[in-house]
Amino acid sequence: MPHLVRLKGFQKLIPINEALRTFFEGLQIEKLRKTAVPVHQALNRVLAEDVIAEENLPRFDKSAMDGYSVRAEDTFEASPFKPKTLRIVDGNEVDAKQAKQVWTGNSIPKGANAVMMMEKTKQVTDEIEVWVPVTPGENVSKKGEDVSKGDVTVKAGTRLKPQHLGLIGALGITEVDVVSKPKIAVLATGNELIEVDNRPEGNQIFEVNRVILSALCRELGAEPVDLGIAKDDVNEIVKKLRGGLEKANAIITTGGTSVGAFDLVPAAVNGIGKPGVIVHGIAMRPAMPTALAIADKKPIIILSGNPVAAMIGFEVFARPLICKMLGLEQELRPVVRAKITRRVPTTLGRRSFVRVHASQYGGEFLAEPVSTLGSGVISTMTKANGYVIVPENREGLEEGELVTVHLFDSVEVVDGSV
Amino acid sequence: MPHLVRLKGFQKLIPINEALRTFFEGLQIEKLRKTAVPVHQALNRVLAEDVIAEENLPRFDKSAMDGYSVRAEDTFEASPFKPKTLRIVDGNEVDAKQAKQVWTGNSIPKGANAVMMMEKTKQVTDEIEVWVPVTPGENVSKKGEDVSKGDVTVKAGTRLKPQHLGLIGALGITEVDVVSKPKIAVLATGNELIEVDNRPEGNQIFEVNRVILSALCRELGAEPVDLGIAKDDVNEIVKKLRGGLEKANAIITTGGTSVGAFDLVPAAVNGIGKPGVIVHGIAMRPAMPTALAIADKKPIIILSGNPVAAMIGFEVFARPLICKMLGLEQELRPVVRAKITRRVPTTLGRRSFVRVHASQYGGEFLAEPVSTLGSGVISTMTKANGYVIVPENREGLEEGELVTVHLFDSVEVVDGSV
Repeated sequence: MPHLVRLKGFQKLIPINEALRTFFEGLQIEKLRKTAVPVHQALNRVLAEDVIAEENLPRFDKSAMDGYSVRAEDTFEASPFKPKTLRIVDGNEVDAKQAKQVWTGNSIPKGANAVMMMEKTKQVTDEIEVWVPVTPGENVSKKGEDVSKGDVTVKAGTRLKPQHLGLIGALGITEVDVVSKPKIAVLATGNELIEVDNRPEGNQIFEVNRVILSALCRELGAEPVDLGIAKDDVNEIVKKLRGGLEKANAIITTGGTSVGAFDLVPAAVNGIGKPGVIVHGIAMRPAMPTALAIADKKPIIILSGNPVAAMIGFEVFARPLICKMLGLEQELRPVVRAKITRRVPTTLGRRSFVRVHASQYGGEFLAEPVSTLGSGVISTMTKANGYVIVPENREGLEEGELVTVHLFDSVEVVDGSV
Repeated sequence: MPHLVRLKGFQKLIPINEALRTFFEGLQIEKLRKTAVPVHQALNRVLAEDVIAEENLPRFDKSAMDGYSVRAEDTFEASPFKPKTLRIVDGNEVDAKQAKQVWTGNSIPKGANAVMMMEKTKQVTDEIEVWVPVTPGENVSKKGEDVSKGDVTVKAGTRLKPQHLGLIGALGITEVDVVSKPKIAVLATGNELIEVDNRPEGNQIFEVNRVILSALCRELGAEPVDLGIAKDDVNEIVKKLRGGLEKANAIITTGGTSVGAFDLVPAAVNGIGKPGVIVHGIAMRPAMPTALAIADKKPIIILSGNPVAAMIGFEVFARPLICKMLGLEQELRPVVRAKITRRVPTTLGRRSFVRVHASQYGGEFLAEPVSTLGSGVISTMTKANGYVIVPENREGLEEGELVTVHLFDSVEVVDGSV
């Protein structure tokens, strides 16, 4: 059975959907503390509690135009040939056949129910001539039209964008409760790994998975906790993992997860808490040797040591985990539908993640597969700006096929308008 | 001429493309200082200098698999029926008919030129039986295959994403030169405006444009400088603008820009430096009263006081300005092509920005126009997750038309798979 043999000893690969279900069913995600932050510092934080409007917005009927507040009835049947004449007043009230000048945003005086645009009138000493009728409510922003008192204005679980901050501020709110940043401990393992500021000798290579995974955590609004590099030594790995359980809400490791000679991380994880590894070996490419574990009620995601496989493993497992920790329903990467420029073979029975470079030519998007020589080739991730998911029941993508590209970087416009 | 009258006194509206050209041609954007930051703190910063590889990556020929390094020629014609036999050695060299065990990432010993996957061999005491041939170079990551010494690995002007940090780290680089954050002074003007922590009386409203625009600046990697609120008083505005010129690389103002009674900002800007306002009144909707100015060689963008118009004005004028200051070629928002769910009328001769809520139903994207009652209705921006640009030569969008949605928030999947 050459197929099974190729799996390096995994008895059975678990489909991604089943792996995710098993993992999240086994996990009781601890609710993170909420923390109050000033609105102007809340960009990209996740709202912990619904923001309920304690005021109407606008707080009062206000003019949507520069013009004259009037009683609409006084303008009915006005025309350029038979204008209506209204007397300009200056008080807080507009009576019959009166008009009061208002600027955009001014409150509508008592008695008035509409605003006549300035351009549709002519001022003659202390009167205006009105050439067109207005209907009651015309050019008036009604009290509560934007937000009504008691409305849920922004829902808990919303990632706060500039527009949310503006709306919250417009309600007179200066501080919001946001979800604390989940702490994610990141550990790299491998005898061959050295810190980037060292000088490599022989087989040694610079450890970069921590910088990548920490940055991916930060992008989502989590706080990475660096556990450093562990040698291929089960005691050292156990010690570092224990430190991670103390300091963080979850742990991500890289390296030492294929079923080879130095595959010590799953063993170490099983040594630190129950139930330990619950999924190991996933029907995906890259990132097949990924394992998922729970210890001390905390999630542990055990990723491959190959940077590309680690990134894809993070995308599939750590990203939804962190979103759930933050209380986000879901947060998908932006996608474009693009034509794939050449045939890409994939393996039946595995969900494949094909790195592509998407670009826009005129109105059309093209996705160029980034040729890859292995999941360790990190430059494929910088040449790509997205990936295409090829499902388990497909053996590849046909040239010219329309695919969905999940973007992790911006798309350039090569030619033509948007 | 009722059309011209409606422009509140603008003699002629300037098309967006012409406004941008005039503005950027008149502007010599000062080159920002570069600043060295540790790679792990460089996420989303813009690279100031090309990163050139001083090393090959990999630094040596290495194994892409767990298996045995061999001379490919020794395996030619091997088959399960007629396996070849190689002697396992342990040194730094592989001679004819020898094999040395290697793990993924190990260097290839001298003499060997290929790696035989472990699963395609059988160990018999100190020998292996080889069942299939390998070709020279098979399962070997060649020295320099990922990055060659001297390559431009990451280009100046790149916004650094996790994968760039990983690639830079893999070259043994610990610090990168990034572009300093441009400082953008933000000023709000208007007698009716109060700070969010005050209590409103009468016509007063909470000032929120600064929090929105500051957050938009931060999203792009600029550093907002708060100039506070100025009353509708030309001397006060001039004073605050002068402070902005001293402290920042550019200024953005909101309010006081329509040609009404309190339109003092363009006048104030003209008072602080030459050439002053160079564009005022733009053929767009919303944000028509936007003005563009240059004073003391610094760009000043004068936005409407309406929050929605201010956001669209920022999008069209401040976003490309900040990108240019950062040395980014272009940085477009992600887009999806979506079917618009109902007809939207727009005005011929204006470029219109229609706020929509895009969502995914099955494989299809739908864009629901967010009904709007005026550009002051800030909740339309939180209900929308993107906008559609309707060009000047169109009078609207037809129901069911396929449009490009520029996304400023995430898209939810309402139903179905990606």
